[in-house]
Amino acid sequence: MTQKQPAGRIRRSPEQVRTAVHQAVIDLLSAPEGEDLTIPAIAQRAGVNHTSIYRRWGSLDALLADTVTTRLERNSPLNDTGTLRGDLVSWAEASVTSMRTPEGRALVRAVVLSMPSSAQAQTERAQHFRRRMRSIEQIRERATARGENPPPLEQILDQLIAPFYIRAIFGIDLPATGYPQLLVDRLLGSASGTDAA
Amino acid sequence: MTQKQPAGRIRRSPEQVRTAVHQAVIDLLSAPEGEDLTIPAIAQRAGVNHTSIYRRWGSLDALLADTVTTRLERNSPLNDTGTLRGDLVSWAEASVTSMRTPEGRALVRAVVLSMPSSAQAQTERAQHFRRRMRSIEQIRERATARGENPPPLEQILDQLIAPFYIRAIFGIDLPATGYPQLLVDRLLGSASGTDAA
Repeated sequence: MTQKQPAGRIRRSPEQVRTAVHQAVIDLLSAPEGEDLTIPAIAQRAGVNHTSIYRRWGSLDALLADTVTTRLERNSPLNDTGTLRGDLVSWAEASVTSMRTPEGRALVRAVVLSMPSSAQAQTERAQHFRRRMRSIEQIRERATARGENPPPLEQILDQLIAPFYIRAIFGIDLPATGYPQLLVDRLLGSASGTDAA
Repeated sequence: MTQKQPAGRIRRSPEQVRTAVHQAVIDLLSAPEGEDLTIPAIAQRAGVNHTSIYRRWGSLDALLADTVTTRLERNSPLNDTGTLRGDLVSWAEASVTSMRTPEGRALVRAVVLSMPSSAQAQTERAQHFRRRMRSIEQIRERATARGENPPPLEQILDQLIAPFYIRAIFGIDLPATGYPQLLVDRLLGSASGTDAA
């Protein structure tokens, strides 16, 4: 999958190192043999010293979060289709495409694994969540600016985002066709493709 | 939280050991300081030798799965309310109650962490999924036996189960009231509390 580079052999820019480390995270999370996701394992695979990973990211959680944010932004630029329904279907179609790849499923797993579990990490968890919901918030803001009336974020979470996560977690196949439209129709409370704004 | 028992001090039955190990898993998953979930850490907390955990469960994934199955069955016995809607609302109410406790959130986290991530583990993943969906399948079978027409399992997954998981993962609070009914109404395609069968 990736070319493993011997540590220190070739001089790489900080950006190249960052990309190599992100790729190592994805590779380990999608490895068929289910390898351990630890900073030393990531460092070895990326061909960097594990101390530079600790120095740069501080913790595995922070590295996972940075990987997810960087990759998701690269993989799914937001289309402005001119309607709320169109934007949501476009978002869901990009999610379906992403979830059909090992990298996409690895990213969902990374989101779940990087969530702070601690009871004291409420603020951190809320930040995490807002970062993950940024595209959806942009879609909502554009809709409001157009005079449309988008559903609350929590409803979009329950009806549009949650199904993708649960299917990635349980490894359940997505329906072959029409799934993005189906989820958006359920969300906007319409049985067909008509505009609900 | 739990009384830590020095290993070998008191003779415990296999069932007592099993319960202590399950409790140690829950405690570590709900620890505010976010402790590492490893077999040695679990063994230490439960006051057992880590080799007996390997001998009994084989792997951390298997132990997590056993903990989840045992606790969920103990925590949420299935009510037969006489209708599909009633059974689903009752299931969702039990889930809401469970998710308000640290143990409930720890169990969701355990389900996610215990999912086999490997591409070669399709069969194992499918078994996992069926175990988790057993209560829902029972509700569907009872409905069919009564002559009701329950939604397909995948739709129940997307619309009723997924919202609980996503909220546990992101640490998003459940709405204060009416959430079980709201989710079931959305699922059964009715805006109010009328029967959809």
